[in-house]
Amino acid sequence: MPSKISPFEEIRMLLAGLPAPSHEAAAAVRERDAQLTKPPGSLGRLEEIVEFLAAWQGKGKPEINRPLVAVFAGNHGVVAQGVSAFPPEVTRQMLENFTNGGAAINQLCKSFGLGLKVFELALEHPTRDFTVEPAMTEAEAAATLAYGMEAIDDGVDLLAPGEMGIGNTTAAAAIYAALYGGPASLWTGRGTGVDDTGLARKTAAIDAALALHGPHLSDPLEILRRLGGREIAGLMGAILAARRARVPVVLDGYVACAAAALLHALNEDAIAHCLAGHVSAEGAHAEVLRRLGKKPLLDLGMRLGEGSGAALAVGVIKAALACHRDMATFASAGVSGAG
Amino acid sequence: MPSKISPFEEIRMLLAGLPAPSHEAAAAVRERDAQLTKPPGSLGRLEEIVEFLAAWQGKGKPEINRPLVAVFAGNHGVVAQGVSAFPPEVTRQMLENFTNGGAAINQLCKSFGLGLKVFELALEHPTRDFTVEPAMTEAEAAATLAYGMEAIDDGVDLLAPGEMGIGNTTAAAAIYAALYGGPASLWTGRGTGVDDTGLARKTAAIDAALALHGPHLSDPLEILRRLGGREIAGLMGAILAARRARVPVVLDGYVACAAAALLHALNEDAIAHCLAGHVSAEGAHAEVLRRLGKKPLLDLGMRLGEGSGAALAVGVIKAALACHRDMATFASAGVSGAG
Repeated sequence: MPSKISPFEEIRMLLAGLPAPSHEAAAAVRERDAQLTKPPGSLGRLEEIVEFLAAWQGKGKPEINRPLVAVFAGNHGVVAQGVSAFPPEVTRQMLENFTNGGAAINQLCKSFGLGLKVFELALEHPTRDFTVEPAMTEAEAAATLAYGMEAIDDGVDLLAPGEMGIGNTTAAAAIYAALYGGPASLWTGRGTGVDDTGLARKTAAIDAALALHGPHLSDPLEILRRLGGREIAGLMGAILAARRARVPVVLDGYVACAAAALLHALNEDAIAHCLAGHVSAEGAHAEVLRRLGKKPLLDLGMRLGEGSGAALAVGVIKAALACHRDMATFASAGVSGAG
Repeated sequence: MPSKISPFEEIRMLLAGLPAPSHEAAAAVRERDAQLTKPPGSLGRLEEIVEFLAAWQGKGKPEINRPLVAVFAGNHGVVAQGVSAFPPEVTRQMLENFTNGGAAINQLCKSFGLGLKVFELALEHPTRDFTVEPAMTEAEAAATLAYGMEAIDDGVDLLAPGEMGIGNTTAAAAIYAALYGGPASLWTGRGTGVDDTGLARKTAAIDAALALHGPHLSDPLEILRRLGGREIAGLMGAILAARRARVPVVLDGYVACAAAALLHALNEDAIAHCLAGHVSAEGAHAEVLRRLGKKPLLDLGMRLGEGSGAALAVGVIKAALACHRDMATFASAGVSGAG
């Protein structure tokens, strides 16, 4: 009789045998790009983006017909420590705002033709306060991650995962501190806008958590369950499912990248299909991107979450693809080449 | 009898009495912004952009209903010095490409709902080779500048001026060297992609021009006529007309900013209504923006011209405005504020 496989072992199995980028598709993009009516290289990162899409979609002619912002929302026991400027009921209130089309992410999705799907993750059951005990059980963390994988359904061809959850910059900061070391203060920002006292409480909560869980933090999945949140587990699932389905991902900011960082710590290659949509003004996001080897597309001082930075980047990405797809060639337009 | 006013004196008169930004309109934007369902400041530069639009449009509720890319195209006598990788007939060929919808700028305008208008500036009469004589007469330069002012007609509410002209990065580099000093090599880039030999020819042409015209380069309008191009004169007119009509401007890259730099040298305040759309990978564009006191919205390694970087930035700007205009307030959405 086979021994039972633990939930985390099942996840580790999903992280093996991931699809590789298609060098043929990338080469096809480069070949067409060289014929387009512009000096070679003059569209800069717009050219790189199209190659990236091609390589990960495995298509010489990449497409963005159904880009999706998938927002994961969870509540956090650690808010009991006074780490946020907003009360925890705001998580649910903002979900209603998403449904009614009133949030920033609604306007950004509308501006650039993105779909928006919200994954509500047991808001009535916040994770446990990680200054006292692990935030989740293994079963909870793994099931939420698996649920996050449902963000990729048929037809989604570009994924921008976002999040909502009062307290979740505290969880993200704790994850970064656990993954990368150094004092909590190095990784901690003001989130939705805590004052100095709130920031001190936030840093203290993370320091307490690191002291409590320290011996168990060598495994990224243990970091997820002990310090993470449901939305971070969901984000991990969405990013992983995208990779398995050859769907490129546009990373959002400080919290979404905590999910990417955990995946990266489990398997460096697991986020190779992810492009950094922007660098957030929150905490140490720039340093996180550096560690993940990602150069952000945008740097606009945003720190909202919801997938907002990624959605804005999708506007640029769609335009990059439109240039590559629809520009005339030197031959078709009768334009002379370089002499 | 009044003495006749010279063409350049007429232009100098247009640079006086420019409208000021509306602090009331900017304050109205800030007031509404504070009520929107997001942490204060969390949309970063997107918030600043809307204030900027409001201040310059003089409207508490700024609008972008008719954004326009105005592309100015001219030919350059200095191409005789072998300064470009492309032959001069490409200027006209690219204009046909614009008309047929095949250029990068066409795809970017389509992506973000911008109008596109092309101003063809006597392509059959290139400016004179400025290594030998002034590129234009005073009458030519002033008339072209005045023609450029027609880019602003009724209803244009955001202007992104662009350019096309084989040889025009050489003219722009010469302008920067004349305005800011230092050796030509400091301001010169590879344009459409000249090799090392071409770059040496380009730098030598600019050095020759500086030596020839040096005694006459203390006046920015003399710099324009001696070293500039018709498209640069047209761009100056467009930017100036926009200011007079309270239309905010999104600056493009290396060549478009030469027009902004000349205006700025004539009157520092004359480009206060301009936002830097992007920083180009060409030559010393980053240094030019620093001197103009402009922080670019985008940094994507682009160096195409045509207004392409500005058009991409307009995508971001429209999205910023959509957030401000259409987001729910804490009160309307029933979302709790910061505690």
